[in-house]
Amino acid sequence: MALSQDVDAISLSFSGFGVDEKSIVTILGKWKPEERKSFRKGCEFFSNDDDRHFEKWNTDHMAVLKREFSRFKNAVVMWTMHPWERDARLAKEALIKETRSYDIIIEIACTRSSEELLGARKAYHSLFDHSIEEDVASHVDGSKRNLFVALVSAYRYEGSKVNDETAKSEAKMLCKAIKNAKTQNPIENEEVVRILSTRSKLHLKAIFKHYKEMCGKTLDEDLEDGSSLEKAVQCLSSPQAYFSKVLSASLKSGADEKTKVALTRVVATRADHDMKVIKEEFQKENGVSLSQKINETTHGNYKTFLLDLIERAA
Amino acid sequence: MALSQDVDAISLSFSGFGVDEKSIVTILGKWKPEERKSFRKGCEFFSNDDDRHFEKWNTDHMAVLKREFSRFKNAVVMWTMHPWERDARLAKEALIKETRSYDIIIEIACTRSSEELLGARKAYHSLFDHSIEEDVASHVDGSKRNLFVALVSAYRYEGSKVNDETAKSEAKMLCKAIKNAKTQNPIENEEVVRILSTRSKLHLKAIFKHYKEMCGKTLDEDLEDGSSLEKAVQCLSSPQAYFSKVLSASLKSGADEKTKVALTRVVATRADHDMKVIKEEFQKENGVSLSQKINETTHGNYKTFLLDLIERAA
Repeated sequence: MALSQDVDAISLSFSGFGVDEKSIVTILGKWKPEERKSFRKGCEFFSNDDDRHFEKWNTDHMAVLKREFSRFKNAVVMWTMHPWERDARLAKEALIKETRSYDIIIEIACTRSSEELLGARKAYHSLFDHSIEEDVASHVDGSKRNLFVALVSAYRYEGSKVNDETAKSEAKMLCKAIKNAKTQNPIENEEVVRILSTRSKLHLKAIFKHYKEMCGKTLDEDLEDGSSLEKAVQCLSSPQAYFSKVLSASLKSGADEKTKVALTRVVATRADHDMKVIKEEFQKENGVSLSQKINETTHGNYKTFLLDLIERAA
Repeated sequence: MALSQDVDAISLSFSGFGVDEKSIVTILGKWKPEERKSFRKGCEFFSNDDDRHFEKWNTDHMAVLKREFSRFKNAVVMWTMHPWERDARLAKEALIKETRSYDIIIEIACTRSSEELLGARKAYHSLFDHSIEEDVASHVDGSKRNLFVALVSAYRYEGSKVNDETAKSEAKMLCKAIKNAKTQNPIENEEVVRILSTRSKLHLKAIFKHYKEMCGKTLDEDLEDGSSLEKAVQCLSSPQAYFSKVLSASLKSGADEKTKVALTRVVATRADHDMKVIKEEFQKENGVSLSQKINETTHGNYKTFLLDLIERAA
C-alpha cells in the first residue's frame, strides 16, 4: 500500500528532530485529499506499531508536523537574536511554560558572565516590564525560591583574587549542610545559598576543590540527583560538562519534547562561546562526536544549520 | 587669661563642623610652646565647664583638630570622586568601620537608580576584589542579612508598568507581616524581603498607598523605630524626606560623630540629583532653610563648600 510506505518514509523524516523537507515535499505533495485526511486523523496501521513516533503521531499528527517545521525556524530565530534578548526570552518562557523548565533559569544565571547575565536582566526589563527576579520570585515555589532569586540577582566578581582560607571554611560549611541534609534540605540553607550566589567562580572552584578533599566526593555527586542545587553546582563548576550532558539527553532516542528543545538552545547559545570544549566533553562522555550524533538524529535544514553552528567552533 | 580666651575662640571655631581656618591661623599661630602643650593635654579650666565641646576636647584635642580639618578635605574628595567609586567606597567603609554604619548600605541600595547601584557594584569589584554582596553577607548578621544582600543585589525595573492588583495583594502581605511582628520579626519574613528588594519603585509606591488605605498608618510608621526595615522603606518610598531627616540629625547640636559625617555624604552625593527637593523637605521639617542651618553650624572652607554645593540646586 503506497500510503503506508509513504507514512513510513515520513516517519523516518521525523524520527529525530527537524524535517527532511525534501521527502516531505515529494511525499505530501502527491497525496490526494483522502490520503491527507487519513494521515491527519491517524490510521489503524499506526496503532499496532511499536514505534513510539507512530503512536505520538496518532494523537496529534498536525501538532507534530508544525512542531518539527518550527524547530528550524526557532533555531534560526534564536541564533539571530541578541544574546541578552535571547536569554531574557528563554527565562520568561521557562517561567510561564506549563512544563516549568526552571533548569533554564539556573543555566542562564550560572553559566553566563556577570555582564551577560546583567544584559539579560536589562533586556528582561524592556521586554516584559518587570525584573527577572520579580518573576522568578512569583513563579518559583518556596524552598527553591531564595536560591533562584539570589542566582539571577548575582553580579559576581570576576577578578583573580581568591582567599583560600575563606574558601576552605566555606567548603566546610557546605560539607556540614550536606551532612545535615536529612534535617534541612540544603537548598533552604542560607549559607549554601549565599555561597553559591555571591562568590566568584574562581572562588567557587577553590571551594569545590576543598570540598572534594574534605568529603571524598565532589559536591554535585553529594547532591540529590536532578535537584536544582545539583544543576546549579554543575553549571557553576563545569559548565561545558553540564552542557554536554544536556545535549546527550536531548539527543537520546525517546527523549520528551522538553528535553529535546534543549538541543536548539544549547547549540544557539554556546556556538559563539565554548562549543569547542563542549564538543570535547561530548566526545568524552558518549564516545561519538557531537556532529556525528546530530547528523544521525536530525533532519533537513535544521540539521544543516546545527552542524554549521557547531562546526564554526572547530 | 589670654589662653582661656583663645581656647574660647577656638572652641567656637569648632563648635559645629569644620574649622574656621582664619581664627585658627590667628590664634594658634601666636601660641608659645607651653600654651600649645597645655592645649594638647587639656587644662583644668576645661573640666568645670558645661560646654560639651570642652569636655570632648579634654579627652583628645588633637584628634578633634585633625578630624575637623579633614572634614573639608573629605567633602572635596567625596564630591570629586566618580559617583560609582564614591558609593563603593562608602559601602566598604560602612561595612568595615567599627561603628558599623549599615544604614549607609541601605541608603545606597535603596535611593540610587538601578544603573547607579549597578555602577557601584562594578566599582566595588575593581576596588576591592569582591562583590559588594559577598562583603555584605559576611559582615551583616543573621536576621538582617537576607534583606541587605537582596537590596544590594537589586536591579529594579524602572518603567511605568504597575499591576495594581498585585500591589494590593502585596500590601496585604505586608500588613499581615506587620501584624505578626511579635511572632516573627518582619525583617526575617521572606515575602517582605522579596517585595522590598525586587519590586520597582513605582510598584512599591502603589503598595505603600494600598497599605495606608488598609492599615490606617503608613508602613514606615508601623515599623520599629530606627530599624533597618524602616530605613529601607523610607529610602524607597520618600528618599528626599529621608535625606532631609538625616541632614537634620547631623546638624543637631550634640550629634555624635557617626551622625555628623552624614552631612558631607548627603550633600556630596545628592547635590547633583535631588537637592532641590531635599531642601524643600528640610525647610518643611525644620522651619528653617538648609542653607541657614549649615551657615549657623559649620565653619570656614567646609561651610563655603557645602553652601556652594547645595546652592547649585537652586
